Formats: sequence, C-alpha cells, structure tokens
Amino acid sequence: MADACRVIILGGGFAGLEAAKGLERVPVAITLLDRQNHHCFQPLLYQVATAALTPADVAWPIRGILSGQRNVRVLMTNVDGIDTERRVVTADGGSFPYDQLIVATGATHAYFGHEEWAPYAPGLKRIEDATEIRRRILIAFEHAELEIDAQRREALTTFVIVGGGPTGVEMAGAIADMARDALPHDFRNIDPARARVLLVEAGPRILAAFPEDLSRYAKDALERRGVEVLTGRAVSAIGPEGVSIGDHVIRAGAIVWAAGVAASAAADWLGADRDRAGRVKVLPDLSVPGFPEIFVIGDTAAVADADGKSVPGIAPAAKQMGRYAASVIAARVMGDRAPGPFQYRHHGDLATIGRKAAVVKLRWLTLRGFLGWLFWGVAHVYFLIGLRNRIAVAFSWMWDYVTFGRRSRLITQPANAGPAEAEPAGSSGRPSAAAPAENAGTAPQRGGVWG
Amino acid sequence: MADACRVIILGGGFAGLEAAKGLERVPVAITLLDRQNHHCFQPLLYQVATAALTPADVAWPIRGILSGQRNVRVLMTNVDGIDTERRVVTADGGSFPYDQLIVATGATHAYFGHEEWAPYAPGLKRIEDATEIRRRILIAFEHAELEIDAQRREALTTFVIVGGGPTGVEMAGAIADMARDALPHDFRNIDPARARVLLVEAGPRILAAFPEDLSRYAKDALERRGVEVLTGRAVSAIGPEGVSIGDHVIRAGAIVWAAGVAASAAADWLGADRDRAGRVKVLPDLSVPGFPEIFVIGDTAAVADADGKSVPGIAPAAKQMGRYAASVIAARVMGDRAPGPFQYRHHGDLATIGRKAAVVKLRWLTLRGFLGWLFWGVAHVYFLIGLRNRIAVAFSWMWDYVTFGRRSRLITQPANAGPAEAEPAGSSGRPSAAAPAENAGTAPQRGGVWG
Repeated sequence: MADACRVIILGGGFAGLEAAKGLERVPVAITLLDRQNHHCFQPLLYQVATAALTPADVAWPIRGILSGQRNVRVLMTNVDGIDTERRVVTADGGSFPYDQLIVATGATHAYFGHEEWAPYAPGLKRIEDATEIRRRILIAFEHAELEIDAQRREALTTFVIVGGGPTGVEMAGAIADMARDALPHDFRNIDPARARVLLVEAGPRILAAFPEDLSRYAKDALERRGVEVLTGRAVSAIGPEGVSIGDHVIRAGAIVWAAGVAASAAADWLGADRDRAGRVKVLPDLSVPGFPEIFVIGDTAAVADADGKSVPGIAPAAKQMGRYAASVIAARVMGDRAPGPFQYRHHGDLATIGRKAAVVKLRWLTLRGFLGWLFWGVAHVYFLIGLRNRIAVAFSWMWDYVTFGRRSRLITQPANAGPAEAEPAGSSGRPSAAAPAENAGTAPQRGGVWG
Repeated sequence: MADACRVIILGGGFAGLEAAKGLERVPVAITLLDRQNHHCFQPLLYQVATAALTPADVAWPIRGILSGQRNVRVLMTNVDGIDTERRVVTADGGSFPYDQLIVATGATHAYFGHEEWAPYAPGLKRIEDATEIRRRILIAFEHAELEIDAQRREALTTFVIVGGGPTGVEMAGAIADMARDALPHDFRNIDPARARVLLVEAGPRILAAFPEDLSRYAKDALERRGVEVLTGRAVSAIGPEGVSIGDHVIRAGAIVWAAGVAASAAADWLGADRDRAGRVKVLPDLSVPGFPEIFVIGDTAAVADADGKSVPGIAPAAKQMGRYAASVIAARVMGDRAPGPFQYRHHGDLATIGRKAAVVKLRWLTLRGFLGWLFWGVAHVYFLIGLRNRIAVAFSWMWDYVTFGRRSRLITQPANAGPAEAEPAGSSGRPSAAAPAENAGTAPQRGGVWG
C-alpha cells in the first residue's frame, strides 16, 4: 500500500463522499480532509432551523460513513492552502502530499459585497447555522411573550427570509407552519399564529428554476399559510433596525439569508480562473487547466451542461461530479482509457412549501400539493445515509404530521456571534436570556396576563 | 383571575415543574421563570456527553410541558434578585410581584474553591455542558488520529473523570463503552479501544451512597471494561498540563468534573442561612425562616429526613418537595389546614455502569448486572416526559444495543469557552479544527498510515 497512488479529497460533502466511495475498489490510498467531523445533509438543514429535526438527524460522522472502506483515512483538520508545485496540501494537522487531488470544499453564503449584513441575517449551510437560526426564531417568540409594547411585540414576531429559491421557500413555509401549528397553545401573552413571515425575492418570481405554473402554485400555497411573498423587491440594507427595501424598513425578530452563495476559497488556493460566484472554471474532465492531477467538483466547480447552462449547486450534481472524478482517477490508476467528458444529467427539481404542499418537476412527472409533498418526503428519506437515520426522520415526520408538533425546540447558547451582534433587530435591547445580564437596567414593572 | 393569588416559581427543573403541576386545580396565577427555555432531564445528560442520545432526547421546552395548564405562564428570563420586603422578583424581563414564591433554581458544579479548574474540567449540569464534553472527547480522538508523537497520542486518548458518584461512574463507563464498541472501526492510526479512562475518587470507595457489595461490583464492572478506578486519591490540581494527584500528573485529552455541586445563588438573593454547599436552611414546611410565603425546594434546599440525614440532591427528592410546597400553598388558598412537615421518602438508588451493567438498591430489591441494567433502562424511559421522548430514547437504546453504535457523534463549535481555554490538556497546542487556524505554523510533514 505504501506505493499506492495517494489521493487526497478535500471536503466530506456530497461530492467528496461520492468520490471516495467511487474509489472503493481501486488500489489507491485516500485521505479525506474536512474541518468538520460530520457530513451534513444540507437539503434538510432548514428543518433543524425550524425545530422539526435535530442536528443528529441530518449530520453523521464522516469517519463512520466510510468506516468500512479500508483504503480511506478521514482526518479532521483545517486546510489552509495547496502547494501545486510540490503537490502538497497544507493544513493545521500537517502537510499532506498527493498524487491526485480532489477539491470538494463546497460553497458558503455570500452577501453581494455586504458582508456587514452577515451578523443580522445568517445563512444556512452548517449545523451551527441551523441551530443559531433556530435559537433566534425561538428567542424572538420568548422575548415577544415578555414584551409589553405592542409595536415591539409585532416586530419581534416578524420574520424576514431574503431569497426566493428552494431554501427561502422552505424556510418561509416552515416558520409559518411552526408558528401556526406548533406554538399557539404554549404562549399566553402573544398569539404565535399571528406572526408575520415575509419572503423577499429580487427576481420576478420565486422558485425561478421551476416552470411558471409551479412558481405560481408555490406562491399561492405560501400565501394560504399567511406568508407575504414580495417579488421584484431587492433588499437595500440589513442592520440592527431590520431589513430595508428601498426606503421601507421592516423590523424583524429574525432574518434569514437565502439569497446568494459563493464558492469556498479553492480558487485562491489554486490560483485558478473563477466565475463571478468564485467557482473554479474547470475543463470538461473537471480538472483544473494546467493541473491534470487536480479536480474541482461540487459547488466549488463552474461547469456547463450539454445545453451550455451552468450546472446547479445541488446534491445530485455534486454526487455525479464525485463519481466522475473517481472514474477518471480509477482509469489512470488501472491504465484504462479515460472516460469521456463529464455530462450532467438533470433529474429534476423539488421544493417543499410546508405541511401537505410541495412542488416536484421531474422530466416525466410534475406534482404539487399533497402528492408532491409525499414524493418529496419519500425521496428525502431515501437519500439519507443509513437505515437508522431513515427510521428516525420518518418517525419524526409522521409524529409531527399527526400531532402538529415540533420536537426540537431547544434554545442553546449562541455558537459564535456575540450577544450584541446576535440580538434580533426588533428587540428593544433586551439581552438574550442565555447571555449574562448586562443591560437589564430599566425594564418596566410587568403586569402581563395576570394583571 | 386578576385577584387570584400570584405564585411565582423560579426554575423549571424537576422541583419547579412538579410544584406547578401540583397547583393545576388550584385557583392561582402561576408565573414560572427560567433562564433556559427547556427542562433538562439531568439523569441522562451523561448519555448526551457520550453521543448516545441527542440534546432533544433529554430536553423539552418548559412551555410545551405546561401548555395544557391554563393557570401557568412560562417566561424565559434571567432572575437577578428577590426583593423580599416588596415581594417582587427582579429579572431581565421585568419585575414580577408575588404572593407566594417557590425558589427551585437548582445547583451547579463546585470546585471546592478552585474555580480556576473549571475551564479544564467542565461539569455536567446543562445541555451546553454535555455538548461541550462530547466535543472535547471526540476532538481528542480526532487529534490523536492526526498525532505522530506516540506520547502525545497517548495523552490525547486519556480521559480523567473526577468524582466517583453516580455521574462519575456513568461517565467513566460510557466513555469506555464508546471507545471500545463504537469507535474502533472508524480510525486508522489509533486504536480507540486502547484509550485510558481513569475514575478518581477521594473517598475510600465509589458509589458511597450504595451498600459496599454494590460499590465493589461497580468497581469490578468498570475495571472489566478497562476503566482504572483510583479511590482514596484526591486531585490536587487541574490545569493545562492535566490532572495532578499528589506529585503525579496525568495528561489527558479531556477531563470531566463530577465531584461537587453547590446550590445556586438563592441564599444570596434571600439573605438566608445556608449550609456548606450553599443550600438554604429551610423550616420543616420548606419555607424560609421569617418568610412563610417563600419556599425553597429541590437542590437549593437543605432539608433533613426523618433520620436526620440530609435529603440527597436527586430527582425524586426534588419532585417530592415540589409536590409538598404546592400542597402547602393549595391549603392556604383554599383555607384548608396546613399539611404536616415535609417528609422525604427515599425510594432507592440507581446507577448504570455501561452496557449490561448497573446497580439498583431499592428498599425491597437489590439488582446488579444485566437485570439491574434492564431495570435502570425501563425506569428511566418511564420517567421521561411524553410518549414521543420515550419512544425515541427506547429506540436509540435498542438500536445501539444491537449495533454497538453511537448515534450522535457530532462536533459542533464550542458554546462559550475560547479555543485556548477549551483546548484539551494533552493537545500539543493544536487549534481546534473548528476554530480559525492561527498557530498552524510549524506542523511537521505527516506520513501517517499511508507512508
């Protein structure tokens, strides 16, 4: 094994995992590096953010997933660069020489040059993002229950989601469902069912990747559950006072960013050409121009499909690229003929709106409403890794369907944002209950429901 | 309702919840204040710390638990004092006047005057403590897998638990089980089964509350699974270098404090007499001397049982006190005769050691081994709140029993400790992989298993 071709995979997301699995029967020595110890099933992250699932339902240790594959070692470490001349990856945990390198480091949210919006409007990419958004939403309701000023109470129970793609639609629908179904009986001073949920989209319609009739259905379905859908409206500012659309400021208890993503730092590490979203422009075999031994795949790669359209940043595309890169490396190692250029096959688009409502657009099948929702649920359970996670998630969903409950409504301490930064915009300066009391000062005497 | 007797309950633990439920049919207006939004089932917290259960399995929103009880409102806020003259509780969220007050704010870990040990040896009282300990244990294995120095690798896979009560025994057994059963197949450079687990107890034997033969059985059962049990050995220092016992320093990847608790700040708020553990010395009706309208219950109260022994800080005792305080208030409100003095009934002691091993000592029943373990499991599932949690926990346990797995092995970012503080003692200064790389500098080139 000492002389085996050394393959390094950066990132244990859909692309990286699939690349590793694709090399299972190939005599190579794989090292998979990730800064997290877990693979995160991002399509269901919004359900963690809205307390329907727990982190352990959608995140599993990478080394556990690959534990049976003896030609892989998994190391948890922060990569900080690639020396393409010496063919070495440098990381906190050491330097790792490679013969073949697969870069699958994914994407993160991007604020179109307004990074100062980030503390007020977190995006949804990692487990920590999801628990932070969950904390903000739940804390907003807690603060509203304590609030005696009606206007501030209204601001605290206003939730703004920026971006009308699948993630934005799913977040808006899930917050509305939670406020309407799961919370009302638990509060005495406020009526969570009257919470305002706004979905703001700069383009002319939400779910732009779907046919127009499905977009329209999604908008109607959101509006039926009380979500205000604002299309053709661009956000001009996000700050402690709330979200600004033109001159209009919407004060909010929590803001979620679902509008833009940018690729990870891979293009910098490689000194490679990139597109506007920071993705590395790769050759038809997904390798980097000038470096046939380096592949960039998944959300980090800019690839065009057969029609010249950009391959979307979704899980099936990432998996196809992972499988393809593995096949190229396998052919090299085995001395076989190189496979033809990467060809993306688009199987379709799915988005859920909430309880009993989803849209599904496959090549031969269009579904909406209850049937779409069932299809969406079965498909996602199927794509989870491991029987246990499938059972746990299916059980959670069925239980919530019957009881209208939300299991995982935990507020735990903030992960990284300071209390000042993390404070929801509408909150009258009250400190988060988890943070030490520093500015409790002049709170008025409360009467509340009991007079 | 406006004229109803105003009852304030501080704390939504076992004692506070039981007091609220005990007043369900009494015409009072209850306000329950807690700084957390959830009730935490502390007896199973060690299973979150060792990745067997997820936080949502053992923590449930307090307002959800009490949602059907219309005479209770639940508010999440930090209490900072009690004005016993004006009969007002002051908190971040406002001032709350009371007619009857129940203080059930629990206890926290105490370091016998060595608060400087806290960053290196967290205790296990809150969800955040459990996920922090889980993070440290899992990170220690991750760092060991990356480590090329054999001595440092050994230090990283050494775990020291300070305190041989039920929590210490349960943590030691669970870490040993996890290292031996769940992790081995996942690592390539280290053998987790060879991890060292040390349980250090200053007294002559572990599980001092149990009869001697059960203590001995527990020690044997721990040793059979590889735990080194050190009794009669007091810890003299805990710091970045590890745990010191006399002159001997044990370097460790993670240290857990299970040795001492102290009551919360209630005695300060009330200006009341306290015992050495900071618990308020209450009258036989659990009220505070001089303040018949203030009750202190649960881990915050110092009460003697019929034999003059101190009532232990366990869930059944807290529940009994909660029920009793509710009955005293109910009698006052209804104009009935006051109940007799509080009498603690000790039902028994339970502690689990690990897979198929536990000790149970009830009045009429003594169990150990597999039968004790079954009894322990059934009892704990029974005491969980809600059918759903019972199903989820029972399913998790059965699955792990069959597969030897651990579901919830997630490393998420530290909640509050800075990376420097949170760094495990044995770790050669490598930054946590979740933290930004600041001192990666001089890491040596790695060969690892692949040469």
